Amino acid sequence: MSHIFHLSGSYTDLYQLTMGQAFYLKGRAFDHAVFDYFFRKLPFNSGYAVFAGLYDLLEILEELHFSRGDLHFLEENGFHPDFINYLENFRFQGTIYSSREGDLVFPTRPVIQVEATLVEAQIIETLLLNILNFQTLIATKASRMAYVAPNATLIDFGLRRAQGLGGYHASRAAVIGGFQATSNVVAAKDFDIRASGTMAHSFVQSYDDELTAFRNFADSMTENCVLLVDTYDTLKSGVPNAIKVAKEMEQKGHKLLGIRLDSGDLAYLAKKSRKMLDDAGLPYVKIAASNQLDEHVVKSLVEQKAPIDVFGVGTSLVTGQPDAALDGVYKLSFSGGKPRIKLSESLQKITLPDRKQVFRVYNGDDNFYGADAIALRHEKDPDTMYHPFEPEKSISLKGFKKEPLLHKVMENGKMSIINIPLDEISSFRNERLSLLPEEFKRFDNPHVYKVGISTELMTLRDDLKNQYKK
Amino acid sequence: MSHIFHLSGSYTDLYQLTMGQAFYLKGRAFDHAVFDYFFRKLPFNSGYAVFAGLYDLLEILEELHFSRGDLHFLEENGFHPDFINYLENFRFQGTIYSSREGDLVFPTRPVIQVEATLVEAQIIETLLLNILNFQTLIATKASRMAYVAPNATLIDFGLRRAQGLGGYHASRAAVIGGFQATSNVVAAKDFDIRASGTMAHSFVQSYDDELTAFRNFADSMTENCVLLVDTYDTLKSGVPNAIKVAKEMEQKGHKLLGIRLDSGDLAYLAKKSRKMLDDAGLPYVKIAASNQLDEHVVKSLVEQKAPIDVFGVGTSLVTGQPDAALDGVYKLSFSGGKPRIKLSESLQKITLPDRKQVFRVYNGDDNFYGADAIALRHEKDPDTMYHPFEPEKSISLKGFKKEPLLHKVMENGKMSIINIPLDEISSFRNERLSLLPEEFKRFDNPHVYKVGISTELMTLRDDLKNQYKK
Repeated sequence: MSHIFHLSGSYTDLYQLTMGQAFYLKGRAFDHAVFDYFFRKLPFNSGYAVFAGLYDLLEILEELHFSRGDLHFLEENGFHPDFINYLENFRFQGTIYSSREGDLVFPTRPVIQVEATLVEAQIIETLLLNILNFQTLIATKASRMAYVAPNATLIDFGLRRAQGLGGYHASRAAVIGGFQATSNVVAAKDFDIRASGTMAHSFVQSYDDELTAFRNFADSMTENCVLLVDTYDTLKSGVPNAIKVAKEMEQKGHKLLGIRLDSGDLAYLAKKSRKMLDDAGLPYVKIAASNQLDEHVVKSLVEQKAPIDVFGVGTSLVTGQPDAALDGVYKLSFSGGKPRIKLSESLQKITLPDRKQVFRVYNGDDNFYGADAIALRHEKDPDTMYHPFEPEKSISLKGFKKEPLLHKVMENGKMSIINIPLDEISSFRNERLSLLPEEFKRFDNPHVYKVGISTELMTLRDDLKNQYKK
Repeated sequence: MSHIFHLSGSYTDLYQLTMGQAFYLKGRAFDHAVFDYFFRKLPFNSGYAVFAGLYDLLEILEELHFSRGDLHFLEENGFHPDFINYLENFRFQGTIYSSREGDLVFPTRPVIQVEATLVEAQIIETLLLNILNFQTLIATKASRMAYVAPNATLIDFGLRRAQGLGGYHASRAAVIGGFQATSNVVAAKDFDIRASGTMAHSFVQSYDDELTAFRNFADSMTENCVLLVDTYDTLKSGVPNAIKVAKEMEQKGHKLLGIRLDSGDLAYLAKKSRKMLDDAGLPYVKIAASNQLDEHVVKSLVEQKAPIDVFGVGTSLVTGQPDAALDGVYKLSFSGGKPRIKLSESLQKITLPDRKQVFRVYNGDDNFYGADAIALRHEKDPDTMYHPFEPEKSISLKGFKKEPLLHKVMENGKMSIINIPLDEISSFRNERLSLLPEEFKRFDNPHVYKVGISTELMTLRDDLKNQYKK
């Protein structure tokens, strides 16, 4: 697939390389290591997150190597010749277990486990976090808009306000979260998304009058013509002129696709415009709305029964405002033949050791129960899960259907999954969300999805903790 | 210069191309047009913004063209063969007037004016906004940290939490704003920034004990060795072990560069650690601090006289939290031989017509007065400036020194500036900030920098407004 970027081994933090060098020079670089990718806090006060970015990550990892320029730069920065030699032939040859892209994920539990040599696992850390944290943030944001406007078409308009090149993957993640189209042409091309767009104020301004501007646009856009009606006065000028042009288009056997509202009270203007269009015998002309939308504004418009068919969302979608980042981390859980933990003053920040599996618990009615249980990888059917930080809280899992969530997606550096079309990933997300009870999806104080640890995992963690405390 | 990205003409919004096609098919594509890039609101409640991203934009514009893949995609999306033919030979051949990169910029006034054919000016809009909005946001954020910690070293640690590929240009913009180094290896390489890094918890965890981990790291990093001291217990284990290793390094003729604190009360721990290091005869060992820093936390640490030499800042820097985007826009001000405005219900949103120059007003003491005056381009010395939306407010500019701020940086598609090293751009920013009185730089309710319009510009705008209103 063609992409606007080309990442090499230097897309990493310097300390991954200085640590890698230390491991290398001390003969520990090729120790077997396991790292967990997980996050601690859901963004947007959401009750869930939508996992995205997996395929992009794997695609990059398969090709990752250090360029001549990278190696030269590291030489200049004092890296040891032996380590540079190693990097010259570097390829990521690890194995990755992952949640499915589009699945719902929750705090504390591993979303991905990476097994590789210590040096390989370190080098890819920054890249992995960079790709997955961001796409998961944006897919989650998008899914909230799709949740409140299930019958509308959602279009990403964000590229101009995106965080630089971040806009590229934002458009992809938006589709996983439930958007149907993007204005971002290169993302549409590279990720096979429907490209969509209307017209700008500048088009109207560049003519001496609005009607001439609309006529000229309609002449060159006999299909998919959407007219922006708020340059001068929406109800007195824009909509009446759009109606005139729609009628002229009918004469020529064409149909105006829609009008776009981009300022003012969108609920009021949409209702008035709808009535004007309907009264003119143009019930098929759709109404698109844009202007600083987010999931809360969209929800309010839907609740007010504003007859808006299409929402164009920019800044808040592609930047995840007001949460700029998912706080995903990548923590060592096994190395040198031993399970490992990171201690911390707060129990919440003590990590979970060893190779693990995560089980999703189902209700009797085959919906999600609202609980994921983290177990050691060899456990096939954990019978109890404990609150990870308040061990007096536990749930019996006996008799519940459980689905293992981590699947092998890369083995010895080769991808073992195919490139699933984005609309299929989006359908999968939609299916998973439909299994999640409503109380986890509401915006205000959503019900807390439980994540627990098995008896064996808790015992191992506590043993290690006591060992280190000594 | 090598880069991780390659942008082609498809790095744009679809509507730029549908509008371009409409202009093209109607014979207006090559009309001369002028667009202004400006923003309406300062981010972070800051009293100023730092302009960044110019060189990157110009470098991309010089090479911009449509690839075979782009053209094929547009064909498939129903674009007219004549327009595709035009795009096949597309090159941006416009002329750009711009503020200097690193200069302080303020709302309402043009930061850039683009003069080009209508179709070229539309096609580059999204790209221009995408690059400049983001880098200006991040340079502004960075400058606030540099302002409160002028004697510390500031290092960008953000790549893992950046908005995907946006992290690349974030590292560049951070340096313009006053950061001295980055952990982002590829940005360091491509933008000639000092690469910097310490060690991660995983390094310490991968050993059975902290002291062995530190010794191994110090052995492989005889220069620039910084030890992370909070994996187990900062004051009881981390700092004492770091002191042991520092002493061992001295035996071998080396010096420990520093320790890093990454959790807990940074002010308290820095003071305690400093005393322990000093008491051990290690006054040269520096203290670095990280963990969810932003300009407010850095300010507080400086005010508490925490002996921190180096601040490592991640998420808040590279994402501009809590403001995810600068609201920069790109508005038509001239086309088809006429000055143009966009009307709006609110006077604030009516745009300023025609080709313009912006003058910075100086005080008698050669500091900034706190006012930029927007005039028509032919005006050499406007004598009055009016509040753009409250015309009863005006300031006489007679006798004040004025500096024109917009300079030609690209002519007929060719850059007319050189690639200025980032540290020089940062010095220029620092110089400009030193001319700005303190009351514009404080964090709480900074003094409002005045931006006004000349008599001639006001008259032209009001005439056009009245003309359209008729």
